[in-house]
Amino acid sequence: MSGNTFGKLFTVTTFGESHGPALGCIVDGCPPGLELTEADLQSDLDRRRPGKTRHETQRREPDQVKILSGVFEGKTTGTPIGMLIENVDQRSKDYGNIMHQFRPAHADYTYHQKYGVRDYRGGGRSSARETAMRVAAGGIAKKYLRQRYGIEINAYLSQLGPIKTEKLDWSHIEKSAFFSPDPDKETELEAYMDALRKEGNSVGARINIVARHVPVGLGEPIFDRIDADIAHAMMSINAVKGVEIGAGFDSVTQKGTEHRDEITADGFLSNHAGGTLGGITSGQDLLVSIALKPTSSLRLPGRSVDTQGNAIEVVTKGRHDPCVGIRATPIAEAMLALVLMDHVLRHRAQNMDVTTDTPIIPAQA
Amino acid sequence: MSGNTFGKLFTVTTFGESHGPALGCIVDGCPPGLELTEADLQSDLDRRRPGKTRHETQRREPDQVKILSGVFEGKTTGTPIGMLIENVDQRSKDYGNIMHQFRPAHADYTYHQKYGVRDYRGGGRSSARETAMRVAAGGIAKKYLRQRYGIEINAYLSQLGPIKTEKLDWSHIEKSAFFSPDPDKETELEAYMDALRKEGNSVGARINIVARHVPVGLGEPIFDRIDADIAHAMMSINAVKGVEIGAGFDSVTQKGTEHRDEITADGFLSNHAGGTLGGITSGQDLLVSIALKPTSSLRLPGRSVDTQGNAIEVVTKGRHDPCVGIRATPIAEAMLALVLMDHVLRHRAQNMDVTTDTPIIPAQA
Amino acid sequence: MSGNTFGKLFTVTTFGESHGPALGCIVDGCPPGLELTEADLQSDLDRRRPGKTRHETQRREPDQVKILSGVFEGKTTGTPIGMLIENVDQRSKDYGNIMHQFRPAHADYTYHQKYGVRDYRGGGRSSARETAMRVAAGGIAKKYLRQRYGIEINAYLSQLGPIKTEKLDWSHIEKSAFFSPDPDKETELEAYMDALRKEGNSVGARINIVARHVPVGLGEPIFDRIDADIAHAMMSINAVKGVEIGAGFDSVTQKGTEHRDEITADGFLSNHAGGTLGGITSGQDLLVSIALKPTSSLRLPGRSVDTQGNAIEVVTKGRHDPCVGIRATPIAEAMLALVLMDHVLRHRAQNMDVTTDTPIIPAQA
Amino acid sequence: MSGNTFGKLFTVTTFGESHGPALGCIVDGCPPGLELTEADLQSDLDRRRPGKTRHETQRREPDQVKILSGVFEGKTTGTPIGMLIENVDQRSKDYGNIMHQFRPAHADYTYHQKYGVRDYRGGGRSSARETAMRVAAGGIAKKYLRQRYGIEINAYLSQLGPIKTEKLDWSHIEKSAFFSPDPDKETELEAYMDALRKEGNSVGARINIVARHVPVGLGEPIFDRIDADIAHAMMSINAVKGVEIGAGFDSVTQKGTEHRDEITADGFLSNHAGGTLGGITSGQDLLVSIALKPTSSLRLPGRSVDTQGNAIEVVTKGRHDPCVGIRATPIAEAMLALVLMDHVLRHRAQNMDVTTDTPIIPAQA
Repeated sequence: MSGNTFGKLFTVTTFGESHGPALGCIVDGCPPGLELTEADLQSDLDRRRPGKTRHETQRREPDQVKILSGVFEGKTTGTPIGMLIENVDQRSKDYGNIMHQFRPAHADYTYHQKYGVRDYRGGGRSSARETAMRVAAGGIAKKYLRQRYGIEINAYLSQLGPIKTEKLDWSHIEKSAFFSPDPDKETELEAYMDALRKEGNSVGARINIVARHVPVGLGEPIFDRIDADIAHAMMSINAVKGVEIGAGFDSVTQKGTEHRDEITADGFLSNHAGGTLGGITSGQDLLVSIALKPTSSLRLPGRSVDTQGNAIEVVTKGRHDPCVGIRATPIAEAMLALVLMDHVLRHRAQNMDVTTDTPIIPAQA
Repeated sequence: MSGNTFGKLFTVTTFGESHGPALGCIVDGCPPGLELTEADLQSDLDRRRPGKTRHETQRREPDQVKILSGVFEGKTTGTPIGMLIENVDQRSKDYGNIMHQFRPAHADYTYHQKYGVRDYRGGGRSSARETAMRVAAGGIAKKYLRQRYGIEINAYLSQLGPIKTEKLDWSHIEKSAFFSPDPDKETELEAYMDALRKEGNSVGARINIVARHVPVGLGEPIFDRIDADIAHAMMSINAVKGVEIGAGFDSVTQKGTEHRDEITADGFLSNHAGGTLGGITSGQDLLVSIALKPTSSLRLPGRSVDTQGNAIEVVTKGRHDPCVGIRATPIAEAMLALVLMDHVLRHRAQNMDVTTDTPIIPAQA
Repeated sequence: MSGNTFGKLFTVTTFGESHGPALGCIVDGCPPGLELTEADLQSDLDRRRPGKTRHETQRREPDQVKILSGVFEGKTTGTPIGMLIENVDQRSKDYGNIMHQFRPAHADYTYHQKYGVRDYRGGGRSSARETAMRVAAGGIAKKYLRQRYGIEINAYLSQLGPIKTEKLDWSHIEKSAFFSPDPDKETELEAYMDALRKEGNSVGARINIVARHVPVGLGEPIFDRIDADIAHAMMSINAVKGVEIGAGFDSVTQKGTEHRDEITADGFLSNHAGGTLGGITSGQDLLVSIALKPTSSLRLPGRSVDTQGNAIEVVTKGRHDPCVGIRATPIAEAMLALVLMDHVLRHRAQNMDVTTDTPIIPAQA
Repeated sequence: MSGNTFGKLFTVTTFGESHGPALGCIVDGCPPGLELTEADLQSDLDRRRPGKTRHETQRREPDQVKILSGVFEGKTTGTPIGMLIENVDQRSKDYGNIMHQFRPAHADYTYHQKYGVRDYRGGGRSSARETAMRVAAGGIAKKYLRQRYGIEINAYLSQLGPIKTEKLDWSHIEKSAFFSPDPDKETELEAYMDALRKEGNSVGARINIVARHVPVGLGEPIFDRIDADIAHAMMSINAVKGVEIGAGFDSVTQKGTEHRDEITADGFLSNHAGGTLGGITSGQDLLVSIALKPTSSLRLPGRSVDTQGNAIEVVTKGRHDPCVGIRATPIAEAMLALVLMDHVLRHRAQNMDVTTDTPIIPAQA
């Protein structure tokens, strides 16, 4: 209830601070019988891991996950899965100067006011380091969804500052230093990021997340529509400031005749809805897009106050991503996986099982 | 757990179909001692009520709310508040023809696939009629938040199709037929809506919601950040396709130096964050913006299939809003009130009470 | 979260006070496709209804339940089921004198201290009238459990004051004025109750509840064991002071060799466990027993204080059951049905469906 | 939702199997500012720890708890508290023979049927080893309740097999090898336990738990009464088969005039209610009593079946407590602390703070 749990039937509860001894989580509700090893989760953790390229924070964390329970002889047992990642490269001294400072656009001020006390080292609990556990938990959901229902979840950078990726080449995403799907924009992105780093500034990004082969019928009206739970999940990711489903904000200027996805016996003729009608999946691809604000930690000085309310100038010297949006890509996938996994279980509770029979119409004409 | 409850400590559970005998809800967790009458809730219900102007559906529903419990001698007692609104003007015959049809962009197809059975009359449970109960419940939250903490919540139409409202004249909103804050655009909006109705088409809209005088410290990291819960709440409103907090999607192209809201002893110098840092309110105004898709029910024929998968042409003859976004204004206010109310209670649980003492800095410079 | 909801997947949220206009509830999570009419629920409501015999309170309430949503053309639709029972025979004047009094063994004092305000008429929210809605909701669960899984739930009076019912004649229960299963004790029970009523006193009772044909596998370790949830459910019934599963308190003096239910290929050889091992149903009958305290409302004067703390003498003149335990019989059945229903859905979420295949061993040798 | 979380606002989620690498838990919702060290929790863990005397299992576990998050510079920060206890003395070989066996009165059969797969080593998840984490979590609750509200929680052995402890000498409990409060019975208890161990048998026990200095007003009607939540908590402890509040099963034969606790300006004149009226604490001592079944693991052979349904004879060779009830004493205290802590937070949510002002009447005359 204090907000550290996500999901209702497939629940993930995380703990851990940026510079504490370890991060951890408990995944409860995983169906028994799923083959699961630490290696299954490590690949996504490696995609999220800092320090892979020069465009990311140079903090070196192996982010090696340990499974402590809930898996026996290579299979999940239906009991809670406890996981742990030790923090290795904390360098607390980097952060000592922020003990009495409120960094602009950070959570320092609000945590201080809310709790009266805060772990200021590296942002403490408000650091995006916590998302490592989400990626680990999301990895379990991803594997189950893929194995049992054939659902595939992928995300990619669709915009970095002013640069929009235009080509959608799925095979390029994992080759790109930016999770970009557009091979033609790789050089431009690199140049932009190098200049940004030199400047000491940061920039925002837009990430698109797509789930394919989603069965019809997932989502619980009224309040726990699939899109509402996706919005919740996405907005819970550090730095996210906007969420769109399907046509998103373009819907504002669309006419009804344009927006409505007509249906034929061969499937839907378009997907402005983004794969959900009335909060329930339609079998079309789930289309989600999110906006991430620029990194708040900057070498360029900014005005702020200290814990006594005195004016100060803040300069952040630590190691930071110039664009936090990039590494949010696997996190966004993980969160979408958690939402779908939760709704698969919720659907099964009331309706036995998710229909994988041929629905009345195919997804897409 | 089947999605008909909103909130964790201040919970609202709704029931009712568009053409059933009544809508109802239970509000649980309301603090005792709040003065409350049905009249307190009726004003917002009247703002949401259909048929006030020619620009809305002509279904005539008085939407008279009855309080059945939880209030004694004019005050809340701390026990659950049961409320009821009877459906008066159903005209079921209008909808008989959709028994075997899936209307494009409606929830007919997905409800049918999910449950195997559906109340097709007027969209049944998926109809926006359900939101009447949210407005009633939100009215309780609004009153409590205003009385105890001075919080004010207001929403307005910021865009209707291509027309953006530019002036923000708070006093005009309730005079406008469209919850528009811009007196200069009223004629243009009227002309546009008249043409749209004549055409038999519909259009999308954008609504902005603002909460003022919000105390510092509301919101529960990690997953139940105030912005994540707001995104959930907003996306649960029928027809919403996008949610922004503060700078929203503009953050994508912002640099860190531009986006970060600098702080002085006199307050924050800007509000790109939209009133939340790390998922916790900062004391600045909460700024939310949502996109609503165009109404799906249209007189203009559209292609679809029937429940057997045969191609059909759908024409909706009933009474519908040409722009559902307009009447969503009080609903969006209600949902924001429910989120804030829930977080006030959640904060109190862990931290005794919301600080109404002067925070370290004032909200806005 | 304020305690008016029972269940996690099959949830029942109730509202209503003893002397308010109506009682109501919302049942959320009912699977679609269940044939359901008001008559299905009325039979249990009639069993609980006051005033059937001279041994019960003479308040005359028809307790006619109305289903307001969630059922369409005679079948549940998967959407929330709203139900209402109007209060008819309130006679508020009976209770006016207790406005400033705390009746001993009643909740007057604790509600007053907790909320600062209370609906004192007939005990307000703390009255057992609220349980009418539990019986209605439980009726839905009972029907589903019987139809889909063959589960049967029955309760009976096993002790009234000093009188133990010894014979277990299932067919007698509904003929008895006391839900007693022992035809030989009916006269003794009548004489005892008549004397008690004349005396103006009240007495406690013990009720046994049995669920038969329960599938193996229901219950969620660790905290939501089936027996833990049953204990919660039973102790939530007004006046219940003790709960036993299987051997219950007799376990204290049992040796391990006596208590352990040995297993053969033909089934368990005994049922000291009461149908649950490790919090999960074993396929044996679920055996539950509860203790109910004597009615607190008595004509015989008792010492107490008023809301100012002054000593007073309290005499309750209203219409009351001399033994509240009797009418608790259908309530206890309803609560057990709600627990089992919830766990059926919870089990299905994680494990697809409840196994109705032949388990490894039959239930009972 | 899979049952591994206890509490609604002060939540404890545990993980870990008897013979896995570690046990762990996450405590979410702890108020910030509480001074907390591992030593604070270790004392209760040591009370529960196996192998302290010859009357307990000889498994040697140091049960050293590590706090991994949520505490900074010696104080809780309001963020989740992750804790870990490593398993040291597993000796898996002891348990290899039970891989294909269902031990009578154990959860082997039900876990197998529920999940299809189970960690059979030492009972896996169903082992009482899991309760170590409850004691750690309960230690946090205990400290907070004592420091802020003066609440004291203590438990003691009130019966072991046929031997009832009669004297209630609080100072003796921690000196006794059995948490017995009666110094006169220590020798008798020792002799009984020695004989039992020699015999290879086990026996049940009764534990009483008392909370003193409980504020008036805790508990949420209707379903989450303090007594209902206590019953839930107690019945979730391994081996518990019965729960009583106050007079418990003695209520069955009591008359109303005897049971009702009369009130004077000096306080209640008796405490048959056990400290709760209408599910809300009255300020009197909370009185709880539980029955624990005899240990199921016995050297004496018992009949059972294997996973193929074939008849076998089971003999348990491992190291076991001849009376599991004894070591349940600190576990029961922990569970009562968790219930009270949760209700303190729930009460504060709706009512600001728990009243520590003088209530209308003192607790006890």
